[in-house]
Amino acid sequence: MRSPTVKLLISCPDTRGIIAAVTSFIARHQGNIVELDQHTEDSSGQFYMRIELERAGFALSDQSFSGEFSPLARTFAMQWRATWDLADGGGKRIVICVSKEGHCLSDLLYRWQSGELEASIVAVIGNHADLAPLALAAGVPFIHLPIIEGDRQRQEAAMLAKLDELSPDLVVLARYMQVLSPVAVKAYHHRLINIHHSFLPAFVGPKPYHQAFARGVKIIGATSHYVTDELDAGPIIAQSVAHVGHRDGVADMIRIGRDLERVVLAKAVRLHTCDKILVGGNKTVVFD
Amino acid sequence: MRSPTVKLLISCPDTRGIIAAVTSFIARHQGNIVELDQHTEDSSGQFYMRIELERAGFALSDQSFSGEFSPLARTFAMQWRATWDLADGGGKRIVICVSKEGHCLSDLLYRWQSGELEASIVAVIGNHADLAPLALAAGVPFIHLPIIEGDRQRQEAAMLAKLDELSPDLVVLARYMQVLSPVAVKAYHHRLINIHHSFLPAFVGPKPYHQAFARGVKIIGATSHYVTDELDAGPIIAQSVAHVGHRDGVADMIRIGRDLERVVLAKAVRLHTCDKILVGGNKTVVFD
Amino acid sequence: MRSPTVKLLISCPDTRGIIAAVTSFIARHQGNIVELDQHTEDSSGQFYMRIELERAGFALSDQSFSGEFSPLARTFAMQWRATWDLADGGGKRIVICVSKEGHCLSDLLYRWQSGELEASIVAVIGNHADLAPLALAAGVPFIHLPIIEGDRQRQEAAMLAKLDELSPDLVVLARYMQVLSPVAVKAYHHRLINIHHSFLPAFVGPKPYHQAFARGVKIIGATSHYVTDELDAGPIIAQSVAHVGHRDGVADMIRIGRDLERVVLAKAVRLHTCDKILVGGNKTVVFD
Amino acid sequence: MRSPTVKLLISCPDTRGIIAAVTSFIARHQGNIVELDQHTEDSSGQFYMRIELERAGFALSDQSFSGEFSPLARTFAMQWRATWDLADGGGKRIVICVSKEGHCLSDLLYRWQSGELEASIVAVIGNHADLAPLALAAGVPFIHLPIIEGDRQRQEAAMLAKLDELSPDLVVLARYMQVLSPVAVKAYHHRLINIHHSFLPAFVGPKPYHQAFARGVKIIGATSHYVTDELDAGPIIAQSVAHVGHRDGVADMIRIGRDLERVVLAKAVRLHTCDKILVGGNKTVVFD
Repeated sequence: MRSPTVKLLISCPDTRGIIAAVTSFIARHQGNIVELDQHTEDSSGQFYMRIELERAGFALSDQSFSGEFSPLARTFAMQWRATWDLADGGGKRIVICVSKEGHCLSDLLYRWQSGELEASIVAVIGNHADLAPLALAAGVPFIHLPIIEGDRQRQEAAMLAKLDELSPDLVVLARYMQVLSPVAVKAYHHRLINIHHSFLPAFVGPKPYHQAFARGVKIIGATSHYVTDELDAGPIIAQSVAHVGHRDGVADMIRIGRDLERVVLAKAVRLHTCDKILVGGNKTVVFD
Repeated sequence: MRSPTVKLLISCPDTRGIIAAVTSFIARHQGNIVELDQHTEDSSGQFYMRIELERAGFALSDQSFSGEFSPLARTFAMQWRATWDLADGGGKRIVICVSKEGHCLSDLLYRWQSGELEASIVAVIGNHADLAPLALAAGVPFIHLPIIEGDRQRQEAAMLAKLDELSPDLVVLARYMQVLSPVAVKAYHHRLINIHHSFLPAFVGPKPYHQAFARGVKIIGATSHYVTDELDAGPIIAQSVAHVGHRDGVADMIRIGRDLERVVLAKAVRLHTCDKILVGGNKTVVFD
Repeated sequence: MRSPTVKLLISCPDTRGIIAAVTSFIARHQGNIVELDQHTEDSSGQFYMRIELERAGFALSDQSFSGEFSPLARTFAMQWRATWDLADGGGKRIVICVSKEGHCLSDLLYRWQSGELEASIVAVIGNHADLAPLALAAGVPFIHLPIIEGDRQRQEAAMLAKLDELSPDLVVLARYMQVLSPVAVKAYHHRLINIHHSFLPAFVGPKPYHQAFARGVKIIGATSHYVTDELDAGPIIAQSVAHVGHRDGVADMIRIGRDLERVVLAKAVRLHTCDKILVGGNKTVVFD
Repeated sequence: MRSPTVKLLISCPDTRGIIAAVTSFIARHQGNIVELDQHTEDSSGQFYMRIELERAGFALSDQSFSGEFSPLARTFAMQWRATWDLADGGGKRIVICVSKEGHCLSDLLYRWQSGELEASIVAVIGNHADLAPLALAAGVPFIHLPIIEGDRQRQEAAMLAKLDELSPDLVVLARYMQVLSPVAVKAYHHRLINIHHSFLPAFVGPKPYHQAFARGVKIIGATSHYVTDELDAGPIIAQSVAHVGHRDGVADMIRIGRDLERVVLAKAVRLHTCDKILVGGNKTVVFD
C-alpha cells in the first residue's frame, strides 16, 4: 500500500524559477517529493505542474499550507490547489448518474468493490429505475428521479438538490442520456465527467454508432470529457478506439464500443480522483 | 512467389444460390479457387463476393470469360469485374500526384523499388517541382504542371490530358494539396485515392493537425479514401490512429501523423491494386 | 434479433471443387447461405470453411443432415461439424472455473446478464470460496471444491465428476490458478479456454507481470487460448496489448492488464460459442 | 524552430531535496527550465531526472558547467551528463550498419533528408554492397566491409577501426544480420541500438516471423533496444505491435513487420539523439 501523500497542482504564466521556488519551499518545510510533473505549453506560454509529496514528515498541514504558500503563489500569479490524502483512505466521493445502459455502471461498481478505485461511490442516481438492482447489489443507494410528463426542469432541480445533499467531489455521467442545463454544468465545473460513445469531435450528439456505420468508418471510439455548456465539446480526458470492418453492423459496433466506453470512463475517473488532471482553456493536461 | 490468379468481384442483391451458381460455374471450367470472401450487408440486403482462382488450368481466358459468364451475371443482376494477372507480372499502372510534402511519395517509391508493391508507378505529377529529385532518383518520370497565376482550371486540364495519355489504373493523391473538379473526379471514379491527415469524419478540410491540437484530442489519425465530389467525404478504405498527449504540439502531431499517413495510404494502394475493395454506396467492403 | 441459423465447419486437404460441391449441396436442400468464410493455408495445404445458413427453409434437420452430408464429406476426407441454433435461444452451456481473482468472472457474468453472451453460464466452480457472492448475486450456482491438504488430484477428480454432471459445451478458466492434468485436458479437448496474462509466448508460467516488469518491456498483453498438455502453449484464440512506461510498476501492470484479460477472454468465449473457431494443428483459424 | 537548449540527465539514489537543489542551482545561474521530467522507481529507490533549459541566458558554458555542478553531484552521488545543443544545429553523429534489407535504412535516410532527424547520418557500413545505391543517392558515404571466407573477426576489427575514425555518438544496427563481439558492444555501450523484428522477449534470435507463424500468434511486433552481450536481451527502448490473422502467412508478417520496424527504430533513434533515455540496470527510463 502506498503511503498517504499531498498533491499540489499549479498553473501560471511561464517564467524563470517557478520550479526552484516551489521545490525549495517544499524542502524548507521538510517535504519529500515522490513525483513531479511539469509542462509548459509553447503556444500559450502557460506553465503546469503537479507535485506529489509524502504526507509523513511534511511540516505543513491542510490548515497551515495555504497561509504559508500564498505569498509564493501570488508572486507567480498561480492558480493552485492542494489535496491531502485522508487518514481513513476513503478518497473522493463519487455520484454516478445513469439511464438504462448498465455496462459503465457495472464496471465502475466492480472496480470500486475490488479496491481498484481510490475513491468511494456514495450514490447512483437514475432517471429510469432499470439499474437499481445493480447498484443495490453492490450496496450503493439508488435514487430514482424520473422525468414526469416531460418536465425535465423539475427533475434536474431535484437532482441538483440531491447532489447538493451528497456533496460529491465528482459526478459521473455513465451513459446518462439527458443533457444538463448550464446551471447544473456550472455547479460541477470540472467535476462533471461524461462518456461519449465516439472519438470526438466525430459524431457529436445522439446515436454515434449509427452515424459511424452510415459513414463507413474503419475505426470507432469512445471519449471521456468534462462537461461544458456546448454538447460533447468539453475538455477531453481520455480516448480509445477499435478497428471495425464491413462485417460489423450497428449492433457489433455497440458491442465493441461498450468495452471502449468502460475502459475510457474508468480511466477518466481514476485520473480525476488521483488529481492528475489540470484543465487549461478547453484542454486537459494529464500527468499520468 | 505466388502463381498468377484471376480475381472475380461481384456485387448484387442477395438471394439464394449465388455462391453455388458461381462456384459451380468456375468448377465446370476447371478453375481452382484459392480464396473466396463473401459478405451480405444486413441493412441493405446487398451481396458482395470476391473469388481468386488459379490462372493455370482455368479453361476460360480474359477474352472468353465475359461471354460465358454473362448469362449467369444477368440472372442475379450482378455488377462484376474480372482481372487477369498479367504474365509479365507488371500489375496495375499507378500515377502519383504530389505537391511539396514528400513522405508518402518517398514511401510508395521505396515499396515499389523493393518489390512490395504488386503494381508499377509510371509517373509522378507535381504542381510544385520540389519532389522531382525523389521521383527521378527512383527512375520515375516527374511531370511538373504548375498552377500559373491562379489558373487552376488550365492546370487541371493539362493534368487530365497527361493522365489520359498515361492511362493509369489508379491515381494516388499523395498529399496533393489541390481539390479536383467534378470532371476529374468522375473520370477516375473509384480509381482515385486520397490520403487525409485526420481520422475522418473529424477535421475535414485544411490543417487537420492544427484543428486536432486546438480541440485537445488524445488521438490523431489518418484516412485513405476514394475521392468523390464532396471534400473528404468519399468511401473510406483504411484508417489508423496514434495516441498523443499534452506534450505534443502541432509539430509533433505532424511528425507522428506522417507515419500514419504513409502506412494508411500504402495499405489503400495495396488493397486497390490487388482488387480487394468493393464499393457499395459510400462505403467499402474490404476483403483482406 | 437475428434469425436462427445452422453453422457448418469443415476442414480437409485442399483440392478443386470443394466450395462448389458444398454450396451446391446446400442449395439443393433449399438452404440460404448468409455467411461463408474460407481459407486455405498455403504452407500446409489445408482447407478451412465455415458456412452459416438460415435454419428457416433448410430442408435438412439436425437428425437428417449427417446422413445426407456424409458421402460428400467422405469424398473430400473432411473433418466437419454442424451446429443447429436452438429454438429456445439458450445457446451453449458454459462452466467457469475460478480461484480468487474476480475481474474476468464479473465481466462474463455481466455480459451474460445483459444478453451480450449468446450462451448460458450454468455454474461457477471455485477452488476458493471468495467469488461465491459474485456468482450467487447473478443467480448462478457456485460450487466450492477446495484443495484439501494439497491433494489436488482428489479435487480435480471431484471437479471432473461435477463437470460430467453439468455436461458443458465450454469450460472457461477465468484466472483459475491450477494446472489441469492431461486427463482433464483430454476430456475437454478444444472446449477448454484459458486466459493467460501475457502476450504469449512471452512470459509463460506464473507471475507474468512480474516477469514483464523485470524485463522492462514497453508493451504488456493478454492471451486467450485452448488448453493443451503443455503449459500456456495451446492454440491461441485472441490477444491484446497495452503500452506501458517506466512509471508503471507491477501493480499498474496488473491493473492495466485486468482490462486486457477481460476483453480477450470474453472475445474467445464469444468466438467459441458462435462456432467461429477451427483448430488446425496448434493454431486457430478464426472466422470473425 | 526551437531555440538551442542544454539537457541535463541525472540518476542517483532517491533522497529528500534533489529537485530543489538542482533547480535552485540552475536558477542561481540564470537558467530557464523549459522541461523537467522526474521519476523515482519504487522497487529500486533510484531517482531519475531530465532537465532541459534554454541555452540563451544560461550563465554556465559547456566548459564551466562541470566544475560548478560537481560538488552538488557528489553530495547526491549522482551519475550525470549534460549536453549542449550545437550552434550549427548539426546534432549527434550517426553511423548505420546494414546487410541486405533496406527498409529501415531507407526510412532513416528519408527522415534525415527531410529534416525530421535532429542528427546527422555520417556513414553507412554494409557487410553486403546491396544497399550502397540507397546511401549514395542520399549523399551518404557507403563503406563496404564484406566478410571474407567466414572471417568475421577480421571484418569486425575493420568495422571498429572505421567507427573509431568516424567517432559516432550513435551506431544503429538497421537489420544488420551479424552478432557483434563483446569488445564491440563494450566500445559503444548504450550508444548501440538494434531493431529486433519481434515483440521481445518473445522470439529471440533468427527468423522471428517464422517463429511467430509457427506459434500461431495473433499479434506480431518489433523492438528497438540497446545492444548488450546477451542476444536480444538489452534494455528495451520502444516496441510496437500489429494484429495478424490466419490469412497472414510468413510473407505477410514480414511485410506488416517492416512498417513496425521502421517506426520503432526511428523512434529509438529520435529518443537517443534528443537525450531522452536514461538506462538503469537493464531497463530504460524514457522521458518523452
